[in-house]
Amino acid sequence: MYPRFSLSQFLSRILPLLFLFSPTSAQLAQNNEDPTTINTMEEFSGYPIHEPPHSFFSNSLSVDAQTLQKQIGELSTFSDSPAPSVTRILYTDKDVLVRRYVKNLMGLAGLSVREDAIGNIFGRWDGYESELGAVATGSHIDAIPYSGKYDGVVGVLGAIEAINVLKRSGFTPKRSLDIILFTSEEPTRFGISCLGSRLLAGSGALEKALKTTVDGQNISFLDAARSAGYAIGQDDLSNVFIKKGSYYAFVELHIEQGSILEERGISIGIVTAIAAPASIKVDFEGNGGHAGAVLMPNRNDAGLAAAELALAVEKHVLESGSIDTVGTVGILDLHPGAINSIPSKSHLEIDTRDIDEKRRNIVIEKIHQSAVTIAKNRGVELSEFKIINQDPPAQCDKSIIEAMEAASKELNISHKSMISRAYHDSLFMARISPMGMIFIPCYKGYSHKPEEFASIEDIANGVKLLALTLAKLSLQ
Amino acid sequence: MYPRFSLSQFLSRILPLLFLFSPTSAQLAQNNEDPTTINTMEEFSGYPIHEPPHSFFSNSLSVDAQTLQKQIGELSTFSDSPAPSVTRILYTDKDVLVRRYVKNLMGLAGLSVREDAIGNIFGRWDGYESELGAVATGSHIDAIPYSGKYDGVVGVLGAIEAINVLKRSGFTPKRSLDIILFTSEEPTRFGISCLGSRLLAGSGALEKALKTTVDGQNISFLDAARSAGYAIGQDDLSNVFIKKGSYYAFVELHIEQGSILEERGISIGIVTAIAAPASIKVDFEGNGGHAGAVLMPNRNDAGLAAAELALAVEKHVLESGSIDTVGTVGILDLHPGAINSIPSKSHLEIDTRDIDEKRRNIVIEKIHQSAVTIAKNRGVELSEFKIINQDPPAQCDKSIIEAMEAASKELNISHKSMISRAYHDSLFMARISPMGMIFIPCYKGYSHKPEEFASIEDIANGVKLLALTLAKLSLQ
Repeated sequence: MYPRFSLSQFLSRILPLLFLFSPTSAQLAQNNEDPTTINTMEEFSGYPIHEPPHSFFSNSLSVDAQTLQKQIGELSTFSDSPAPSVTRILYTDKDVLVRRYVKNLMGLAGLSVREDAIGNIFGRWDGYESELGAVATGSHIDAIPYSGKYDGVVGVLGAIEAINVLKRSGFTPKRSLDIILFTSEEPTRFGISCLGSRLLAGSGALEKALKTTVDGQNISFLDAARSAGYAIGQDDLSNVFIKKGSYYAFVELHIEQGSILEERGISIGIVTAIAAPASIKVDFEGNGGHAGAVLMPNRNDAGLAAAELALAVEKHVLESGSIDTVGTVGILDLHPGAINSIPSKSHLEIDTRDIDEKRRNIVIEKIHQSAVTIAKNRGVELSEFKIINQDPPAQCDKSIIEAMEAASKELNISHKSMISRAYHDSLFMARISPMGMIFIPCYKGYSHKPEEFASIEDIANGVKLLALTLAKLSLQ
Repeated sequence: MYPRFSLSQFLSRILPLLFLFSPTSAQLAQNNEDPTTINTMEEFSGYPIHEPPHSFFSNSLSVDAQTLQKQIGELSTFSDSPAPSVTRILYTDKDVLVRRYVKNLMGLAGLSVREDAIGNIFGRWDGYESELGAVATGSHIDAIPYSGKYDGVVGVLGAIEAINVLKRSGFTPKRSLDIILFTSEEPTRFGISCLGSRLLAGSGALEKALKTTVDGQNISFLDAARSAGYAIGQDDLSNVFIKKGSYYAFVELHIEQGSILEERGISIGIVTAIAAPASIKVDFEGNGGHAGAVLMPNRNDAGLAAAELALAVEKHVLESGSIDTVGTVGILDLHPGAINSIPSKSHLEIDTRDIDEKRRNIVIEKIHQSAVTIAKNRGVELSEFKIINQDPPAQCDKSIIEAMEAASKELNISHKSMISRAYHDSLFMARISPMGMIFIPCYKGYSHKPEEFASIEDIANGVKLLALTLAKLSLQ
């Protein structure tokens, strides 16, 4: 562990030693010398001294890209689907293995690791004013079926590497730095997106719902958590809640999952807001029957009701008047699912999002109306129309954005402002802490599929920017 | 086993013994006496003697309904889904158990049992002119997911009981009687309907296709058959083929799977033709992607292509101009099937049938055109459009129909002519033998669902009619 110094103490005490190795003389001169000496020292050292005090620091940040690349590859092997795809579901055995892998890296980085009752994992680097609100960063490592290696992973392995970058540079945090591995961001197993961060952010409704939530095999949330070694002897999950103010800032590094940065040749996206997500579950029920024997006028086909609703979702999304509105039917299941059996039941899961919460809510209402009308026209029962989540958008914090912009300039990395269309744990951390997000380009914007790719150069830029941003925030 | 007598020999030799027990005196009188004596004997016995020679026989047919009811109940317990539904798939362990059950009943009925390479099971009662073409009856006992107890089962357990009925009555067959348990009628496992009867009927195309057919878990047909004890050491399945002419007639007893008989209060349906079935498999493929990040104009959603095609199937069926045209999308699967992932692949299985083969083929062609157009409009690839089967309809044999009509009259059971909208093994037996079908009413016409029901009284009527029809055909 490094001794507790402020940056100025560091410069005045350690500098003489470093004089031999780096352009610290420029810094020293800036503090103590007259202009003549400064100019001479500039010429002497070859480095201008009119940069902000941190520039030395920025230039000393180096990412171990090769190791990080290797780690991303290793993490991707913990998968329930064959390479190059990745499938890693909350609390399954691959998830348990990958948590051990990450905790080990945290330990190697000198962080002290703790876990909460549901498996949010925290790696802490204590600052010398650790009573102040800490600065956190993190993301997720669960992966939806047949997805890629980078979604979430960049923000976890990249965050650990950012800590390593800071340690290698000699930095000492004032505010503590916390890396968070959120227990589950994807909704695959229980239908609840950002389960870890929602609970951290204190959702009483979720805490209550989790007592009765089951997965597709009817395994309860608590039983699943216990199978992975969490929630042992605990039914009350409110101890997961984190008090507002505990964190001074939260920053997440993530692939863009869009193609704007790549198309414009820009290295960093500084996120200004996160779009508002919503998801809906729908069931239709009819009489089913024999595909050959039941004549068409006598049918109430639940599958055709589902087909109509899927197309209605698209229609209502396109009607919104804005390109920012999106809607998808990712899941459509028929029962009993035999070629010669008229579907007696259909199940849909709908995802819809928008930058504009009100506009998105109008789309949800229209989808509901369509479901009711379709059920009536087809003579089926709308046996379920359940809004699973309907979250507001989140604004990123102005001073965090400023820190990122300054850091980008110092590192001489190109950047632009942008909106996150995908939701992230940041959306929920924003409820308890000022929040910011850093995007890096990804190949053709591909995500949630095996072709997802981010170059190690882009990842390294993101890690560097994250490191410097964390350092700035930590010293505030 | 009964000694080999013809009916007239039976009457002349055994009759004196039976004089004490039954109205055979009326028959004797009819052969030997003058009209005065006949009238007196009518009055004496209480039975008119102007009936056809078989009437004594018809009246001696009795069905052990209680036992048959029990057997139907027992058979339904061999199921992979919970009661009251039945799921029993070709070559699975429940299928293996049920075959043993049926073979045991065949043995108890005094039949000699043999099986072919793919598991068609034959129980034979040798006739005294066994070199003549035999008379066959039978059906299937496999069951699609979440179906009922009676589909196919009535025609197998009922056929065995029909044999028992004949044996109890003292009947002796001239032409041998064969009960056939077709190895699989439902297309659940390999997508091939009436697999057993198609192969019996000599389909070279099927025999070839079976060498490379796999199920949904990629298990080959031959491996699956071997797991059930069939096709041991055999790759050539042409030994399953049955020569045309081997059978003099084939009759199948089955529930109507429609509601006409029930609605009109009629006990027996004498089928005149079987509708022409067809099935199609379709795959669409697109780019998939992130449900939040990919904007609507940049999508080619394979799930929405499937939704449009499902509705197009309905449209083309309704356009046919005839209520006899039906079409169903019983299977629609999305990949990867995650709520926040745009479907990159969709798979549909379509069932369409008609009495009129030409009209049905027009519907198939329109469905194909729609699939091509939808793929183009949605920017997806139509990666598969495969017609699995496209069979002609089958006409029932006139003399078999006449035998059934005569039998119905003799048994004083109400009947009407009708078409079978569902396909049956009879459709394929018709390729190698004159064919007929007997329908019995079923509750509200329900089939392919757990609510499927036929009363034991209706089943007993069907069994009796089958028995008498088999007897008539056997003596021809």
